Amino acid sequence: MNNQPRPSFKSPRFAQPATFMRLPHTDDLAGVDVAIVGVPYDGGTSYRPGARLGPREVRHQSSLIRTYNSFQKVAPFDRLNVADAGDVDPPPVSIEKAYDAIDARIGQIADAGARPIVVGGDHSITLPVLRALARRHGQLGLVQFDAHIDTWDEYFGGKYFHGTMFRRAIEEGLVDGRRFVQVGIRGPMYGEDDFDFHREHGITVVDIDQVKDRGVAWTIDEIRRIVTGPAYMTFDIDGVDPAFAPGTGTPEVGGLTSHEAIRLVRGLRGLSLVGGDIVEVAPLFDGPGQITAVLAANVMFEFLCALVR
Amino acid sequence: MNNQPRPSFKSPRFAQPATFMRLPHTDDLAGVDVAIVGVPYDGGTSYRPGARLGPREVRHQSSLIRTYNSFQKVAPFDRLNVADAGDVDPPPVSIEKAYDAIDARIGQIADAGARPIVVGGDHSITLPVLRALARRHGQLGLVQFDAHIDTWDEYFGGKYFHGTMFRRAIEEGLVDGRRFVQVGIRGPMYGEDDFDFHREHGITVVDIDQVKDRGVAWTIDEIRRIVTGPAYMTFDIDGVDPAFAPGTGTPEVGGLTSHEAIRLVRGLRGLSLVGGDIVEVAPLFDGPGQITAVLAANVMFEFLCALVR
Amino acid sequence: MNNQPRPSFKSPRFAQPATFMRLPHTDDLAGVDVAIVGVPYDGGTSYRPGARLGPREVRHQSSLIRTYNSFQKVAPFDRLNVADAGDVDPPPVSIEKAYDAIDARIGQIADAGARPIVVGGDHSITLPVLRALARRHGQLGLVQFDAHIDTWDEYFGGKYFHGTMFRRAIEEGLVDGRRFVQVGIRGPMYGEDDFDFHREHGITVVDIDQVKDRGVAWTIDEIRRIVTGPAYMTFDIDGVDPAFAPGTGTPEVGGLTSHEAIRLVRGLRGLSLVGGDIVEVAPLFDGPGQITAVLAANVMFEFLCALVR
Amino acid sequence: MNNQPRPSFKSPRFAQPATFMRLPHTDDLAGVDVAIVGVPYDGGTSYRPGARLGPREVRHQSSLIRTYNSFQKVAPFDRLNVADAGDVDPPPVSIEKAYDAIDARIGQIADAGARPIVVGGDHSITLPVLRALARRHGQLGLVQFDAHIDTWDEYFGGKYFHGTMFRRAIEEGLVDGRRFVQVGIRGPMYGEDDFDFHREHGITVVDIDQVKDRGVAWTIDEIRRIVTGPAYMTFDIDGVDPAFAPGTGTPEVGGLTSHEAIRLVRGLRGLSLVGGDIVEVAPLFDGPGQITAVLAANVMFEFLCALVR
Amino acid sequence: MNNQPRPSFKSPRFAQPATFMRLPHTDDLAGVDVAIVGVPYDGGTSYRPGARLGPREVRHQSSLIRTYNSFQKVAPFDRLNVADAGDVDPPPVSIEKAYDAIDARIGQIADAGARPIVVGGDHSITLPVLRALARRHGQLGLVQFDAHIDTWDEYFGGKYFHGTMFRRAIEEGLVDGRRFVQVGIRGPMYGEDDFDFHREHGITVVDIDQVKDRGVAWTIDEIRRIVTGPAYMTFDIDGVDPAFAPGTGTPEVGGLTSHEAIRLVRGLRGLSLVGGDIVEVAPLFDGPGQITAVLAANVMFEFLCALVR
Amino acid sequence: MNNQPRPSFKSPRFAQPATFMRLPHTDDLAGVDVAIVGVPYDGGTSYRPGARLGPREVRHQSSLIRTYNSFQKVAPFDRLNVADAGDVDPPPVSIEKAYDAIDARIGQIADAGARPIVVGGDHSITLPVLRALARRHGQLGLVQFDAHIDTWDEYFGGKYFHGTMFRRAIEEGLVDGRRFVQVGIRGPMYGEDDFDFHREHGITVVDIDQVKDRGVAWTIDEIRRIVTGPAYMTFDIDGVDPAFAPGTGTPEVGGLTSHEAIRLVRGLRGLSLVGGDIVEVAPLFDGPGQITAVLAANVMFEFLCALVR
Repeated sequence: MNNQPRPSFKSPRFAQPATFMRLPHTDDLAGVDVAIVGVPYDGGTSYRPGARLGPREVRHQSSLIRTYNSFQKVAPFDRLNVADAGDVDPPPVSIEKAYDAIDARIGQIADAGARPIVVGGDHSITLPVLRALARRHGQLGLVQFDAHIDTWDEYFGGKYFHGTMFRRAIEEGLVDGRRFVQVGIRGPMYGEDDFDFHREHGITVVDIDQVKDRGVAWTIDEIRRIVTGPAYMTFDIDGVDPAFAPGTGTPEVGGLTSHEAIRLVRGLRGLSLVGGDIVEVAPLFDGPGQITAVLAANVMFEFLCALVR
Repeated sequence: MNNQPRPSFKSPRFAQPATFMRLPHTDDLAGVDVAIVGVPYDGGTSYRPGARLGPREVRHQSSLIRTYNSFQKVAPFDRLNVADAGDVDPPPVSIEKAYDAIDARIGQIADAGARPIVVGGDHSITLPVLRALARRHGQLGLVQFDAHIDTWDEYFGGKYFHGTMFRRAIEEGLVDGRRFVQVGIRGPMYGEDDFDFHREHGITVVDIDQVKDRGVAWTIDEIRRIVTGPAYMTFDIDGVDPAFAPGTGTPEVGGLTSHEAIRLVRGLRGLSLVGGDIVEVAPLFDGPGQITAVLAANVMFEFLCALVR
Repeated sequence: MNNQPRPSFKSPRFAQPATFMRLPHTDDLAGVDVAIVGVPYDGGTSYRPGARLGPREVRHQSSLIRTYNSFQKVAPFDRLNVADAGDVDPPPVSIEKAYDAIDARIGQIADAGARPIVVGGDHSITLPVLRALARRHGQLGLVQFDAHIDTWDEYFGGKYFHGTMFRRAIEEGLVDGRRFVQVGIRGPMYGEDDFDFHREHGITVVDIDQVKDRGVAWTIDEIRRIVTGPAYMTFDIDGVDPAFAPGTGTPEVGGLTSHEAIRLVRGLRGLSLVGGDIVEVAPLFDGPGQITAVLAANVMFEFLCALVR
Repeated sequence: MNNQPRPSFKSPRFAQPATFMRLPHTDDLAGVDVAIVGVPYDGGTSYRPGARLGPREVRHQSSLIRTYNSFQKVAPFDRLNVADAGDVDPPPVSIEKAYDAIDARIGQIADAGARPIVVGGDHSITLPVLRALARRHGQLGLVQFDAHIDTWDEYFGGKYFHGTMFRRAIEEGLVDGRRFVQVGIRGPMYGEDDFDFHREHGITVVDIDQVKDRGVAWTIDEIRRIVTGPAYMTFDIDGVDPAFAPGTGTPEVGGLTSHEAIRLVRGLRGLSLVGGDIVEVAPLFDGPGQITAVLAANVMFEFLCALVR
Repeated sequence: MNNQPRPSFKSPRFAQPATFMRLPHTDDLAGVDVAIVGVPYDGGTSYRPGARLGPREVRHQSSLIRTYNSFQKVAPFDRLNVADAGDVDPPPVSIEKAYDAIDARIGQIADAGARPIVVGGDHSITLPVLRALARRHGQLGLVQFDAHIDTWDEYFGGKYFHGTMFRRAIEEGLVDGRRFVQVGIRGPMYGEDDFDFHREHGITVVDIDQVKDRGVAWTIDEIRRIVTGPAYMTFDIDGVDPAFAPGTGTPEVGGLTSHEAIRLVRGLRGLSLVGGDIVEVAPLFDGPGQITAVLAANVMFEFLCALVR
Repeated sequence: MNNQPRPSFKSPRFAQPATFMRLPHTDDLAGVDVAIVGVPYDGGTSYRPGARLGPREVRHQSSLIRTYNSFQKVAPFDRLNVADAGDVDPPPVSIEKAYDAIDARIGQIADAGARPIVVGGDHSITLPVLRALARRHGQLGLVQFDAHIDTWDEYFGGKYFHGTMFRRAIEEGLVDGRRFVQVGIRGPMYGEDDFDFHREHGITVVDIDQVKDRGVAWTIDEIRRIVTGPAYMTFDIDGVDPAFAPGTGTPEVGGLTSHEAIRLVRGLRGLSLVGGDIVEVAPLFDGPGQITAVLAANVMFEFLCALVR
């Protein structure tokens, strides 16, 4: 029988060590369809730190999640065996060593036949996840919900930080630029040539004004048109407006509402998703209600339901 | 002459012991048309506690309320004699004793010919309020703004907590299911059978996607079509999105905006309202701006204006 | 060569004493096109204090601003020489002396041929700014984003506080009522006669329901129709909903979203703007993410881009 | 029979509009021995604002106070008739008008034969209190618990702010320098001549090192030796270390502990006290536990007990 | 081999689901010497709620604990097999059902031959713990660190809340009054007769002035003199001053310092301790540093070391 | 003439871009005796991040500092020319590159004949500071105020993080172990062999119990006895108890009070100090009062005064 969340009418939601959605925590991946795994690393952060505390807070706030999605009409835990696979243990002081640890653990998950839902951590962690998944599934399509394009080239002379990983992913052949769409892009940029790389590789940008003017349904159609084949979702919580997600490191005003965000993720159902992540939850910048982690938990649940075939 | 809020151009808003809308605090109900009463009880809470602190914080933040509603074109304090009737004193450690205390005090208010606006406290307090009001007014229509249906059956083997009171209200004959509409429902559920009780009793759900897709005007029409006869409004602040109302115990993302919420309440004008409540404000989960209590105060003001005939 | 923000790929955003948009701080106005100047004064506040801390927090959070606006297609620092001109030093304990200090410093800026972007401080500071600018540019048009009309007459028998300055500005002939539009007005008022002054002087109100019902594009058209000739923008952050701007002194629910706010400011491009302000950021009422100051910084950037001809 | 706090075993501490120590709120001073009165004014503040919010927060946190002092062996409410006399309504925007309002209200209290316990507000409010009390009782002795001497001369050319009132009090003959002691003084100063005024008027300073090195008992002896005749206590909460009282505007490290503070106030018993104040509680700078207001409430209780003869 | 905390030089302290001291979480008590168990119940709270969130926060903050106590010269995990035994699942809405659940689980632990360290939860939970332990070990000695005596009789007509459990424990014969000492008592009381029960049953009070005046060493001697035979420690975090432990429901100023607290617990080494608890940590009242939970974790560690024989 | 802080009676403390002690910010070191320099780097942090935000917050809170130390009887700005030398720009993502940047900038300061006061940043930054200063002054004596010994060997196989730098400093010959004293050490350790390195190199530990039992005066004597010759002070703010310094990454309970801390630093006067640092201020873990940064600013001022010969 599949893992089930602890029943909240018999064990209070706030009780017991916090795990993702109150699921069992296990290192054993046998029979697991979906492994939720934390990556508490924020050494790639250029501004406000603290995404290392994201996995624990998302675990805590995901205690509210229940077992049925009445909008998708799906009971995910009946259809998929889901587990809290614990965290990767990335060294805080070296991004290269952290990348190796992440790649290795995601590789184990993929090799065990499970699909990972990764909870960051800053956005730099997506690169080693893509490395591990592309190794198994081949070049991937990618849907990115984000305020930022994250295709810059270097930072203080280095190749890795939370603003360069999608350039690296294209360069390393992990992602197919023509099957790659970025949704929610906005905010001040550095110059018009920030988009040269997109033009060169056929990456599509759906900026925030397009989402607001053409609507969520159009945006979903656009995503589904572009992101064919084996695909990955990366959800930077700063794609959502700071009103709904204040707890993040690089907030950009004028973003998605939480209702738009949930609906967009819901629209991914039916894609050939090999995994996904929710990143950049930085709890120290949220208030005591921790609404950012609550939102991340719901994005995770909506994505989990979208994984049901 | 009717009670008037202290004049803010002669007494600073932040001065004096805080009362609802800076109105006089009195236990004497003679001549009172509308009694605003706090119910600082949160012993029915299954997750985050603290709604016991709601009445004091709503009092504090309601200092911003002024005397004229330019959208409804009504000056409520000229038309109704309104008072801060203090709080019920519910024992924190026994829900049964708390229910008795609430029922008794609301009964006094109703007997004095006043309509109560109740400020919670967790949502479990609505049941004894309905008991007292149905005793006087007969079976009631009900409009519920909420993320949650709150018609579950039991909790740890008990009948009362903040997720069961509307099943109890139907079972006890206090509310007519066919004149009962729930607006804003969303979030993960337990299963499709969560709605069996609704079908059995003719309760209408207007879920959040319906509000967002069909609009506020349509939703108001739907409410007015259903909620005929003597009616009660119960406003769970978690009906509103956590961005606008982070200070609550069971937040659900993807909810109403504050503008939608105010307009929906405005749309109740002309119904035969016998009272109403605003519940689940838990100030500890809000930030220092206490925007949830500010919103609750404005919902209260908008509802007060809607009570003017 | 124009001033440039410190380059964030060589100097971390969180490093160095915080200045507006990481620009050089200088008292020397020679060659400056746009002077960003703080006015840390909140002695005109009738409710929650703390806008005196606005300039420092906006400086801090404006570290996120970059150099290119991809929606306006403009690189403002290439087109305008912009500087952090420091703060006015208004005495906290006397509004008259504060007004003199503000008037004098804005006069210097105008005399040097620079346009000021003023960061408050409470809204009462706009009056001496208008005095200095009208002295140079003649009677001004005015676009005001705000929840409140701020045209009341007196407060505790005095002429100056943050609710009277636009009555004073009309009375003193600084602003032409017929070229004056207020956008986003909402919330409880004192009475229908609050608008008598508007009728007498031809001031236009676009209330929040008009913005929501007719849309941002219509609102921009309305602004551009009314605000002809030399004009000033005053942006009270409480024009935006408390969800997006909790850090303010007099929050009113049901307001603009941050996306609407940014687009409205963008719509000012092409007007004959002689300056503008962003006021009423009160950081103590925000959470640790300081999203209100982040929003103010982006409003400032969008306005700066709109100043490019 | 004397006023009694609401009984907390029958009315929960967090219930009802908050009044000082859960006492009745009344404007009627007949038969009152001790009137606790708020002065929500912070227009004399030179640094962090917010003491205007002190009275409401101290009311809120004083709900914890009980009825018996087992260290002083006194039941104050049996011995004195104590009331919450509400707040003075000082205009926020004019220190002169605020002073007039305070002086008038304290004069009423004194004329009614009651002794005032004043809850600020910033420290500048003590001057009009002293004016009213000296008018009735003649020149006063003064014990000041504080980090700062507050005997500076001017601020931006003005005579009144929260750093000059004790120079004014001496100049106006309200306080006798030889019966005036300042306890807990510390922190950076402007120069050695800061103490010239003390030498000239015979004011005694017991700095923090003296308290720490010689002890609380010695300090009490010193106070009792100096402060003879009709006397007033002024307790600036920043006399206590920021660890124990973070919620204040001008914190100075290295101060009194809360245990030392309570004991020092206890040591005033038997002096001819005509009133006292607790000032500079600025709740926005405290955490959610509001320990500064809790401390202020206990200082108030200890002082009340010390008023029993 | 004994359980060991995850090694922090190989797994970052902030990684993985939080357990007490980073120990394995297990329901299996075989071979366990010390079982750390959470009791997330706060339904006995009369003032500020939120101690239900204590166990999760103490788990989180206990990640800082290391493996060696250089003051006691003991490596506890080498000497004792310690586990995180999870939480009891007490229903939030019924104190009687909660007591049954707690009693049952502590009974299991005691029956398995393990000594429990209980993390609350409000102080009312200590009664069922004492019931389970006295059933196994006979009448117990008791050392209580606390601001409050907690020997009141009734609350709103009920027998159980967080102020009555030690009267109940004496009445039920669980604790021997002559082997019972209360340390740190202070704050306002209800009357001199609050201590009648102490006199009747031979309970010793060491109030805060005795601790401060006579010192920690004397206090330890007094404890060791009184608490002979099988004994239990109950540590209410409000025994410590709110500066060091703001995150609690009923703060009393003038308390123990953290250094005094740790030393007092250290002084228990050698007593015949059958278990202990740390209660009343209410994280919502603490700041983001959560220093109260950090202190609780250290009290727990110091107590664990004191359990080594 | 020496630099002077902006005069707070003419420019409000909260006005103008924040610099250390309101001193001029300059990159020009000519004629500077003491250069206060920020190092906003926290990439060496093993637990809670955020010390990168320390320099800006300490600048902000140091606005309270005045110009005269009445306990040391010294006016430091009359005796020393002090400047805010801005921040080093360390790349956040590489500790090696960060070390190079720090070493280079401190070397410039030393070469210019100025003594640096460094504001961190996590404690790992002290190593490159010592490298630069030992290059100029030869092997240094060291007084370290800290809860932790920071002489561990490796972290995840790397040589640098905030727990190894004093082992490195000894190994590299920068510091003489026999002239090195650590004050305030406490908290759980890993094992007795944590002190082997101390014994081998003659490093002295004055643990917290020695400070509390023998007193501050004895501790100062001990420091002065050991730390002869050219010497450096490193002040980890976690040497102070979390009650007084909650805003830090690795809090340890039972520490120094702020009064003890200030007095200990005062006791360094007369040593041959070549510089010093205050590190590990992590503002996100403090409350809105930011008392940790206030303390750091006062430690900085006290140390500055101690530099006067």
